Amino acid sequence: MIGGGPGSFIGSIHRTAARLDGEIELVCGAFSSEAGRSAQTGEELGLPKERVYASYLEMFDRESGLAENLRMDLVSIVTPNHLHFAPARLAIEQGFHLVIDKPMTFDLTEAEQLRQLVAKTGRQICVTYTYTGYPMVKEARQQVAAGNIGAVRKLFVEYPQGWLSRRIEAEGQKQAAWRTDPKQSGAGGAIADIGVHAFNISEYITGLKVVSIFAQLNRVVKGRQLDDDATVLLRFENGATGVLIASQVATGEENNLRIRIYGEEGALEWEQNDANSLRLKRPDHPAQIWRAGSSYLGGAAKQNSRTPAGHPEGWIEAFANHYRNFAGYIRNGEAQIDAERDFPDVEAGYRGMLFIQRAVTSSGEGRWVDL
Amino acid sequence: MIGGGPGSFIGSIHRTAARLDGEIELVCGAFSSEAGRSAQTGEELGLPKERVYASYLEMFDRESGLAENLRMDLVSIVTPNHLHFAPARLAIEQGFHLVIDKPMTFDLTEAEQLRQLVAKTGRQICVTYTYTGYPMVKEARQQVAAGNIGAVRKLFVEYPQGWLSRRIEAEGQKQAAWRTDPKQSGAGGAIADIGVHAFNISEYITGLKVVSIFAQLNRVVKGRQLDDDATVLLRFENGATGVLIASQVATGEENNLRIRIYGEEGALEWEQNDANSLRLKRPDHPAQIWRAGSSYLGGAAKQNSRTPAGHPEGWIEAFANHYRNFAGYIRNGEAQIDAERDFPDVEAGYRGMLFIQRAVTSSGEGRWVDL
Amino acid sequence: MIGGGPGSFIGSIHRTAARLDGEIELVCGAFSSEAGRSAQTGEELGLPKERVYASYLEMFDRESGLAENLRMDLVSIVTPNHLHFAPARLAIEQGFHLVIDKPMTFDLTEAEQLRQLVAKTGRQICVTYTYTGYPMVKEARQQVAAGNIGAVRKLFVEYPQGWLSRRIEAEGQKQAAWRTDPKQSGAGGAIADIGVHAFNISEYITGLKVVSIFAQLNRVVKGRQLDDDATVLLRFENGATGVLIASQVATGEENNLRIRIYGEEGALEWEQNDANSLRLKRPDHPAQIWRAGSSYLGGAAKQNSRTPAGHPEGWIEAFANHYRNFAGYIRNGEAQIDAERDFPDVEAGYRGMLFIQRAVTSSGEGRWVDL
Amino acid sequence: MIGGGPGSFIGSIHRTAARLDGEIELVCGAFSSEAGRSAQTGEELGLPKERVYASYLEMFDRESGLAENLRMDLVSIVTPNHLHFAPARLAIEQGFHLVIDKPMTFDLTEAEQLRQLVAKTGRQICVTYTYTGYPMVKEARQQVAAGNIGAVRKLFVEYPQGWLSRRIEAEGQKQAAWRTDPKQSGAGGAIADIGVHAFNISEYITGLKVVSIFAQLNRVVKGRQLDDDATVLLRFENGATGVLIASQVATGEENNLRIRIYGEEGALEWEQNDANSLRLKRPDHPAQIWRAGSSYLGGAAKQNSRTPAGHPEGWIEAFANHYRNFAGYIRNGEAQIDAERDFPDVEAGYRGMLFIQRAVTSSGEGRWVDL
Repeated sequence: MIGGGPGSFIGSIHRTAARLDGEIELVCGAFSSEAGRSAQTGEELGLPKERVYASYLEMFDRESGLAENLRMDLVSIVTPNHLHFAPARLAIEQGFHLVIDKPMTFDLTEAEQLRQLVAKTGRQICVTYTYTGYPMVKEARQQVAAGNIGAVRKLFVEYPQGWLSRRIEAEGQKQAAWRTDPKQSGAGGAIADIGVHAFNISEYITGLKVVSIFAQLNRVVKGRQLDDDATVLLRFENGATGVLIASQVATGEENNLRIRIYGEEGALEWEQNDANSLRLKRPDHPAQIWRAGSSYLGGAAKQNSRTPAGHPEGWIEAFANHYRNFAGYIRNGEAQIDAERDFPDVEAGYRGMLFIQRAVTSSGEGRWVDL
Repeated sequence: MIGGGPGSFIGSIHRTAARLDGEIELVCGAFSSEAGRSAQTGEELGLPKERVYASYLEMFDRESGLAENLRMDLVSIVTPNHLHFAPARLAIEQGFHLVIDKPMTFDLTEAEQLRQLVAKTGRQICVTYTYTGYPMVKEARQQVAAGNIGAVRKLFVEYPQGWLSRRIEAEGQKQAAWRTDPKQSGAGGAIADIGVHAFNISEYITGLKVVSIFAQLNRVVKGRQLDDDATVLLRFENGATGVLIASQVATGEENNLRIRIYGEEGALEWEQNDANSLRLKRPDHPAQIWRAGSSYLGGAAKQNSRTPAGHPEGWIEAFANHYRNFAGYIRNGEAQIDAERDFPDVEAGYRGMLFIQRAVTSSGEGRWVDL
Repeated sequence: MIGGGPGSFIGSIHRTAARLDGEIELVCGAFSSEAGRSAQTGEELGLPKERVYASYLEMFDRESGLAENLRMDLVSIVTPNHLHFAPARLAIEQGFHLVIDKPMTFDLTEAEQLRQLVAKTGRQICVTYTYTGYPMVKEARQQVAAGNIGAVRKLFVEYPQGWLSRRIEAEGQKQAAWRTDPKQSGAGGAIADIGVHAFNISEYITGLKVVSIFAQLNRVVKGRQLDDDATVLLRFENGATGVLIASQVATGEENNLRIRIYGEEGALEWEQNDANSLRLKRPDHPAQIWRAGSSYLGGAAKQNSRTPAGHPEGWIEAFANHYRNFAGYIRNGEAQIDAERDFPDVEAGYRGMLFIQRAVTSSGEGRWVDL
Repeated sequence: MIGGGPGSFIGSIHRTAARLDGEIELVCGAFSSEAGRSAQTGEELGLPKERVYASYLEMFDRESGLAENLRMDLVSIVTPNHLHFAPARLAIEQGFHLVIDKPMTFDLTEAEQLRQLVAKTGRQICVTYTYTGYPMVKEARQQVAAGNIGAVRKLFVEYPQGWLSRRIEAEGQKQAAWRTDPKQSGAGGAIADIGVHAFNISEYITGLKVVSIFAQLNRVVKGRQLDDDATVLLRFENGATGVLIASQVATGEENNLRIRIYGEEGALEWEQNDANSLRLKRPDHPAQIWRAGSSYLGGAAKQNSRTPAGHPEGWIEAFANHYRNFAGYIRNGEAQIDAERDFPDVEAGYRGMLFIQRAVTSSGEGRWVDL
């Protein structure tokens, strides 16, 4: 693991998610750019001292030298955005597979380079767009693919948060500080932090590519340097349209990502606050609530849950599904069966970066921009 | 009443709503442009034959001749949009107050004329934007005015319906036929039928005017002549922004108008499917559910409900509130106290028409347009 | 109308419900046992002075003398329980149909007498168990009858209220005063006020009679004279069992009557807070939400609603359904078609009183008692 | 681990829950009474062969002989009820702490013996009543203790499941087979499998002991040998009363354990389907929704969750909380601070067995029985 030192929330989540299914073991880490802090985290995690490194450079150097059955198989990068690319490139070049937290890179150029590296090396990247790890999101994708709602016509996706309603980056809140800093986050604020989740889940469920967008990025809180509120009109490759809302100044909101997909013959609705349900609506029929863990679900939902219906799984389990599916992929490579290959790969990471970059352009120039 | 003959849904609702509180009595009507059908409805309603008219012209003519204590006080126009203006003008000119179903007129020019007529004559128009009749919508307005959520920053309003998901106007569905016909409805389809409700409730609750919009009107169903799906970006006079969604091809959806208003210090959320609740969210506090009929509500909510908490009131009661408040206004005129004066008047009707016209322009030209 | 004078909540509701569909007109009343208060209410309601009476005796006397087309057709009794029987008997004996608020009488003996009177005279009584007036409750009944959930096995019905959590009868709250007074309410408190609704809806939906009960009636608030909390175990004629909960000390609760019926092959669930929905659950299938106003509903639900799906109707409309159906019955008598005959009649009123009396006995003696 | 071999659901859950927080490592197991199956599971789990045992006897024998820093610290027993006691006694006698799935034992006598053993040896037992591991259940307990709802007066707890609606024990469903077999489960069916959860959560949240009960245990499905449906009236030590419902023939239901506690001044409501929320209702105030992960929660809720508000945790995390808290206890023993000592211990396990035994007696004899 690179990053995830003292006080890191997302580092701890990555470790928990990786550990959950007993298929991945944390064997080493460079948890901080300060040697002392890295060592402290390593000790807390019970790692042997010799595998806690003072920098990722040192880590790659030493791990590469270990016997294949001892050295790490997989690197997780959980640092701020501007610190994704350099270790990622190095990792791939040295033959390691990668997990990177979203958005994949600082800017689009870096994303393009990673895409090329993956193509060249055969190493793969899993980008942790958590929400497509939920079983009922996978069920939604499978139902759209099966034609249960007919051709997709309209999509609404929203991701309201309230945690940046005040200018807490000026009050010492660490995560807010880097998320709102263009030098660490890149050109996008809310659009890059959460808009990209909404974009990913939209393409994932519909199986359709977004081909052009019209974005309005707002800086609502005075003095903020990056957008904290975004609305994006979407046009899909099949002519369907959509509306994407991502706001971090939706005062009082937590994290309820919600998506509704309307087809010619029906609609699907999912929201994270009720993550184990998927609603199916068809004209002149009672609405249906499909539930995680049920016997009637498709293969993807079943393979990505651990409990019977009524024993709710949550966000950590969704996260863990990406790790588990990626671990399966690494183990089995091309032999991996389709349902298990289900994780957000470098292409999904690249499209997220493309979306961010185009949204910034569209908003700046007040016009539709192609993806 | 003008219109509301055999098979009219909205005519029947207007009569029920007017009757509910026992303050308004149906005394006469021109229910159809066919004399026989008008007579049939009149008979079903138990009206004396001499006050059932074959046309509104006849109605105004005869009613004006009756003694003041006998003749009607108020005219309800429940015809399709293109048949609002002519009887409305006549009614006002002859000294009658008016209830008109939304949108107020066929086009903006007619709306301007009605506005001038009202200013000149002192007769008033109540435009039945039903949803602002709900007690908890009134409570929301009062809470915003009281500063409970601080300055408004962001607004999301959505009105998804699915009834036009298929081209039922070609299958003999009467209401669909006129709603999708530009000769009867005017320049707007979904934007005029339901978008206008979403617009009205937004200005009503926030107490803020929309000053410019960017609209995307879509004709999703092949062969349809008017928009059946609309997204509108809103800019309010105080700089706040909003997103308005109105769709009639949201397959499987009923009629769940929903609005969320985010201020600097809190947020309010209301949806018609749970009309007796209003959610208040503030950072670092548990969300609150305010309930119709409760002792702790403000005056407007209290005056516009009839039952204690837990005895739900619905759409007809919201409709009836407009009638009741308008009846109070007519009785008391200028003496009416503020809370009772709460009904959508000619100005609200005018702004709805302005919104429709500007949305059509914006969508056609792909640019922001001022209101 | 008898009762419903100044300050009466339920009197006002009865008038609104009766008026809603335009089939019933208030023509006279004895609104209070004080002549002045009766006159005041009559004037507020716009009744001619000569038909506002100082007592129900006077009312029956004078109305009986009017020509048939002028005199009242139907009497509504909305007084406290101990004042139901005397005017009810007189009304029936003089040939009037009756609406009585629940519970039908003060005690079981009175209920038996009314039952006999109805049998003898052919006059009928509608007892306003409001909740069985809801369209989706009627749909539930129809679905059980159609076998959609198989044979009923288990039933849970609960009616939690919180308004008597404190001893407000000692603080001048008028309704609390008579509801908790055995001289005005009879032998039951919560069991008679709301338990009887829960009992009625249970027998109504299942179409099954309760044959024996085990009741625990509690006086939770110190100093209270009647039960304010009740749990009753039910046994139905087909061997199914049930649990009925009725509490008025469920602090913070409003009025959310809720019922769940489990059959061999499925389950139905309805609650008043979401009155326009009915949930159908079957093993190994997604749960379904059936909605009022939908095309797929049965005849009873359709005949008892006024609006399309998504335009919620509420408690007043449920109340009005009883009035409308009873009015239809009176007009058509035996010719009335089955679906229209759907209102709670004297037999339902009698069974409610039987339930109350048996519950009091069971609780007092700590044993199962037959009904 | 003892039990949890091929096909065991609960064994897999225990392992996942134990692993989640990285504090407990699976080091050995006797996963089945068939050596081959035990070995197979051990291999799947990546255990060294020498620590996969053919029986628990062998396991205790060998592990006891290992050096303290190598041998297991803690034993999890996840076998059917009749196989809890023998290994449990042995484990404690040999100095191991224990996790046992609920109900703790086959009968009350065994429970008494374990209680004595714990008292004598200082070894402790954690009984995995999963639901009291949820953070918002812990918050509820803390709020009751803090007096937020005043003295508890009334409690409703329900646990409806539908999985035994048909006689699937006769169709080869393995879990159903032992759960409905008195030789493996003991004297209780639904009351022992899920009623005991409802009982545990009731005493846990209120901090009050149940002192007497009146139980009705039903065998609803023909041919079943144990109760599949139970209703129990509860009386608490402070005079409060309650109703406990546990049914496994609630056709179509999943697993929505739900509890409502009414005090003199407010009420708390929690249900597993919305496990991250806790509702607080007070008279004349808007209801409040307290949410897991929020800043305003008490210490117990905070210490037992891993994610910020809006990132839902589920059933596995609740389960893991018991393991984590028990691991903390074992590490720190008496030094453990109070909030961390929060897990269901042998006394909670004993009370569950007492409840089952008394419920069977009460139901058989049709009378109230003391606990």
